[in-house]
Amino acid sequence: MYREEQLINRVRRRFPFTGDGLRVGIGDDAAVLRPNPGKEWVVTTDAFLENVHFLRKAHPAKVVGYKALARATSDIAAMGAHARYFFLTLGIPEACTGVWLDDFLRGMSRVASRFGLTLAGGDTTKYPKVVMSLTVMGEISRGKTILRSGAVPGDLICVSGKLGEAELGWKIIQRKLHRQKRWARLLKKHFYPQPRLALGEWLAEHRYATSMIDTSDGLSSDLNHICKATGVGAKVWSDKIPAVRVPAELRRGGLDPLNLALNGGEDYELLFTVPKKFSKHMPGKVAGIPVTIIGEITREKTIILLGPDGVKTPIEPKGWDPFQLGHGNVVPLHRN
Amino acid sequence: MYREEQLINRVRRRFPFTGDGLRVGIGDDAAVLRPNPGKEWVVTTDAFLENVHFLRKAHPAKVVGYKALARATSDIAAMGAHARYFFLTLGIPEACTGVWLDDFLRGMSRVASRFGLTLAGGDTTKYPKVVMSLTVMGEISRGKTILRSGAVPGDLICVSGKLGEAELGWKIIQRKLHRQKRWARLLKKHFYPQPRLALGEWLAEHRYATSMIDTSDGLSSDLNHICKATGVGAKVWSDKIPAVRVPAELRRGGLDPLNLALNGGEDYELLFTVPKKFSKHMPGKVAGIPVTIIGEITREKTIILLGPDGVKTPIEPKGWDPFQLGHGNVVPLHRN
Repeated sequence: MYREEQLINRVRRRFPFTGDGLRVGIGDDAAVLRPNPGKEWVVTTDAFLENVHFLRKAHPAKVVGYKALARATSDIAAMGAHARYFFLTLGIPEACTGVWLDDFLRGMSRVASRFGLTLAGGDTTKYPKVVMSLTVMGEISRGKTILRSGAVPGDLICVSGKLGEAELGWKIIQRKLHRQKRWARLLKKHFYPQPRLALGEWLAEHRYATSMIDTSDGLSSDLNHICKATGVGAKVWSDKIPAVRVPAELRRGGLDPLNLALNGGEDYELLFTVPKKFSKHMPGKVAGIPVTIIGEITREKTIILLGPDGVKTPIEPKGWDPFQLGHGNVVPLHRN
Repeated sequence: MYREEQLINRVRRRFPFTGDGLRVGIGDDAAVLRPNPGKEWVVTTDAFLENVHFLRKAHPAKVVGYKALARATSDIAAMGAHARYFFLTLGIPEACTGVWLDDFLRGMSRVASRFGLTLAGGDTTKYPKVVMSLTVMGEISRGKTILRSGAVPGDLICVSGKLGEAELGWKIIQRKLHRQKRWARLLKKHFYPQPRLALGEWLAEHRYATSMIDTSDGLSSDLNHICKATGVGAKVWSDKIPAVRVPAELRRGGLDPLNLALNGGEDYELLFTVPKKFSKHMPGKVAGIPVTIIGEITREKTIILLGPDGVKTPIEPKGWDPFQLGHGNVVPLHRN
C-alpha cells in the first residue's frame, strides 16, 4: 500500500525548492514566506474537481495538472500581480498514484516553470475521485491591484487573445469528436489555457486599466461582473469581438463563433477597461498577446450588443455557474 | 436552482469583512492582503473530505464547519505564528445548500471569531459529496518560526493538554455508542479540537522551543517526524504521558488509554522540545493549557517507551496516514 510520504517525495522531486523568498517549503506543518517590502499579497483559491471541471477519460493527466494550476494562476493575472507561490491540496484514488500522478505533476510543473511559480506546500489524501484545490499567491506594489470595480462611463472595453476557443474545444469533446485527428489542434485552448500574467502586470505597472477580470465564466457573465461592480452598463460592437475561428463543418453543426465568444467560459483572457484618452497609446499587442477594443462603458445599466447593421440586442449573463450545471458550457455533474 | 452568487452572499454575511490588513476580500478575482512590516507569512492548506475525514451522518454540519477550520489553523499554531486569514474552497451537494450550509457556516464562524481569523476568499461549487480545502495564513516576526527540525539530544519533550481524547471520541462513533447520552461529553475533543495558538505564540515569542509539531497524526507518528528531522531519537516515560481518561466500561471494551494517547490522531495538541536548562522556568500552564514534560531527546535514532518498571519498548509510528486507511484511527474510505 502507498504511503503519504512516498507521494510527497515524488511531488517534491518534481517541484524543486527555489529558496526565492521561501524560507520553509514542503515538509513542515506550514510554509514560511518572506514578503518583499512595499508589496501586497494577492491570494486566490480554486477548486478543480473530477466530473465537474474535467473528466478523467477525456482529459489526460498532463492536461489536468496543467489546467488546474493555469486557471488558478489566471486570477493572479486578473489583479495585475506577479505570480510567486502555489499550494496543492490533492485527493486521488490509489489507482492514480502511478503513471497518472507522474503525468499530472509533469503538466503542473510545466506551468510552474513557465510562469515562475514555486510549490510552497499542500496536502495529499486518498479519495475515490481526483479532487483538488489550488491556492496561488502573487505580489504587487502597494495600491496597484486592478479590481473588478473602477470602470466609468466612457471607458473603452478591451480583451486579450481570442474568445470562445476553449468552449469550442469543450464542445468537440462533448460531441465525442476529439479523437479525430483533424480537430486535435482545436482542443489546445481548452486543454492548456495561458494565464495572461505579462499583460496583467504591464497594465498594473502603467496604471492603464480602470477595472479588470479574467474571462473564466464567459464574456457575457464577466462583463456583467465588471458593470455591476460600479453600477454601469456597456455596449459591445459585435464585429469587434475577437471570436474563435470555427471550421465550416462545425459551424454547420451549430457551433456559432459569436455565441461561443459571448457565452463560452474558460478562455482565461483578460477583460479590462481603459480611459478613452489612453486608447491611442494602447499597443495592439502586449508581450506578444493581441489586445482588442470591443466596446465602451455606458451610463445605462444594461449591456448591449451592437450589430454592424445597428441592431441592438441585450446581452444576458449566460456563462458558467457551478450551481447552474447543465447550462451549455459545463461538464455534466454527477447528480445526487 | 441555486446560484453561486446566493451562496457567496450567505457566506459573506456570516463572515463580516474586518478590514484588518485585508484590502480586498470576497467578491473580486483574488484577495489583497497588506503584510505588516518585519513579519513573515506562515501558510498551510488542509483537505477535509466527506468519508475520509468525516461522515455526514455521524458529524453534524456545525461540527464539520468547526473542525475543518480548527484543524487547519492548528498548523499555524504548530509554527508559533499568529493566525490572520483563511480561504475556503467548498464543494457541496445541492441538498446541503439549505440548513446544512447554515449550520456549517455557523460552526466555522465560531472558530473564526474565537481565534481572530478573517475569511478572505475562496471558491464554491456543486459536488456530490461535501469536499473542502482550507488555506490558513498567519504571521510571525522574522526568524521566530519553530520548525519540526531543531531538537538536539538532551532537550526535553513536552506536550500540551491530553492525548488520545479525540481518538476516544472517534472510537465511540465507530462503535455506534455516540447516541448514548452518557458518552456525549467524550466526543467533545473529536468534534471541537482547539488549535493551541496562544501556547504556540508564547513559545515562539520567548524562543523557548527548539522544535514543534501539532499532534494531528498521533504521538508515535508526530514524535517520529521531530526525531527524523534532525536524526535524533527519544525516550518517553509512559507514566508521564497525559493520557485520556477512559471510563472503566470502555476500558473493558478494549480502549486502552496509553494506546489511544500514543497512536490516536487529531488531538491537535502541541508537541515540542525545550533545552533542559529551560525546564525549571517552564510554566505548568500557558494561557490556561497544561504543559507536561514526557521525555527526552536522545542520541540513539530510536524512540523508546520507558515503563515505570524500567521496561523499554520501541515506539513505532502507528498514527494516521491518509494512504494507509483502515489502520486503526481512520474513517473508512469509500474504496474504488
